[in-house]
Amino acid sequence: MVQLPILEPMRLRPNGSGPILFVCDHASNAIPEVHANLGLSAEQRADHIAWDPGAAGVTEGLSDLLDCPAILARASRLLIDCNRHPGDVDAIPEISETTSIPGNGDLSPEEVAARIEAYHTPFHAAIDQSRAELGPQIRAVVSLHSYVPVFHGQQRPWHLGLVYNADRRMADVVREGLSADSDLVIGDNEPYSGQDRFYYTLNRHAQTHGIPCLMIEIRNDLIKFPSDQTAWAKILAPMLMKALAKNT
Amino acid sequence: MVQLPILEPMRLRPNGSGPILFVCDHASNAIPEVHANLGLSAEQRADHIAWDPGAAGVTEGLSDLLDCPAILARASRLLIDCNRHPGDVDAIPEISETTSIPGNGDLSPEEVAARIEAYHTPFHAAIDQSRAELGPQIRAVVSLHSYVPVFHGQQRPWHLGLVYNADRRMADVVREGLSADSDLVIGDNEPYSGQDRFYYTLNRHAQTHGIPCLMIEIRNDLIKFPSDQTAWAKILAPMLMKALAKNT
Repeated sequence: MVQLPILEPMRLRPNGSGPILFVCDHASNAIPEVHANLGLSAEQRADHIAWDPGAAGVTEGLSDLLDCPAILARASRLLIDCNRHPGDVDAIPEISETTSIPGNGDLSPEEVAARIEAYHTPFHAAIDQSRAELGPQIRAVVSLHSYVPVFHGQQRPWHLGLVYNADRRMADVVREGLSADSDLVIGDNEPYSGQDRFYYTLNRHAQTHGIPCLMIEIRNDLIKFPSDQTAWAKILAPMLMKALAKNT
Repeated sequence: MVQLPILEPMRLRPNGSGPILFVCDHASNAIPEVHANLGLSAEQRADHIAWDPGAAGVTEGLSDLLDCPAILARASRLLIDCNRHPGDVDAIPEISETTSIPGNGDLSPEEVAARIEAYHTPFHAAIDQSRAELGPQIRAVVSLHSYVPVFHGQQRPWHLGLVYNADRRMADVVREGLSADSDLVIGDNEPYSGQDRFYYTLNRHAQTHGIPCLMIEIRNDLIKFPSDQTAWAKILAPMLMKALAKNT
């Protein structure tokens, strides 16, 4: 039997009075020692393939500004991606973008099961628990992500992307609010689409329960420093509250 | 009126089943933008004067290993030290070790009150809340700190220090357990003594309530990397449980 250290997610304001549950799937690039860095260099582990740099800071800022609960994963997405169904082909990627991940090759079914139990289950159990505890207080679930400015050689023009699946209630109001700033380039289901497998967390915890939800992707060079992360939180917070006021 | 962003502490396993509440007063070196880095360089802000490097990782490891709740402060101790009474002379230090802190000079009473409200009160309120919610489940409070190997030119010989005030129940059993490793140099109320003002958090939340408590100081060069932080958590976890079994 393969045993791994359970990494419980970090939580902010578990009893906050606000109406939004914030989640950050890719908050950390931590890889417990037992995985021998998955065979990656320090530089590779600091890169966006291992996490969403800056997303945790924006999540913290939003939680503080709106007194809302937040749940932040503590394991690198290279161990297992919390925003994928654990059975998905790229939940434990052998190649991420162009980087081969040596420690993810030829995993046994037991090793996969151990990864799920240690890093995937606790994150989603915490979201389940928070929703159960807070009940109807939670009127929306919003996830924070970041993306790299250049991907597979393509420059991405958007400052941020609003990503949704069938339920576009939050996205539409937030887009309308942000459009007041005409310099802002806003992606519509870009750089990732909520129409595909990239919407696992929000689909599981919000959309299937009829709860409004939104995935916000911010270009990671814009949220490199804590001050920028806080600034983006300040921009987004009133838009999210406005979306809630309109939709619920 | 001076307003500052409230920084709620991070929490781990708020509903964990374990009997110890872990706290980490100096987990973060974050300084919100409004303080203009307190006039310090990036190097100074990365230094031990701003936080206890490595202590958060040990706290996380202990929380995960023992399924215990943990509360970790999110503001640099240079803003206000959560392990001091807010009225203490060095709660907001104008000089830390040998570094003058420009942003802490000549604060008005309103600025001091705002620091307390934004960074000190939320940390202690979270501990109060956790103890209230978990009730008699919490049979000890343990705080994790780290210290610099050389202080004011003096080399510190200890690998770790057990720091206590009047209640030495936890310290005595943990010391006995650690003594099995004869290579380990264990400080007894060193490098800091729990007999003075450095015991604020544990005195407030544990000792005055008759709850066993212990402050653990680890030399910060021993917990520089996550793997070392986890290793120390694994050493300490069984000792703490043994101390609880003996004392409660």
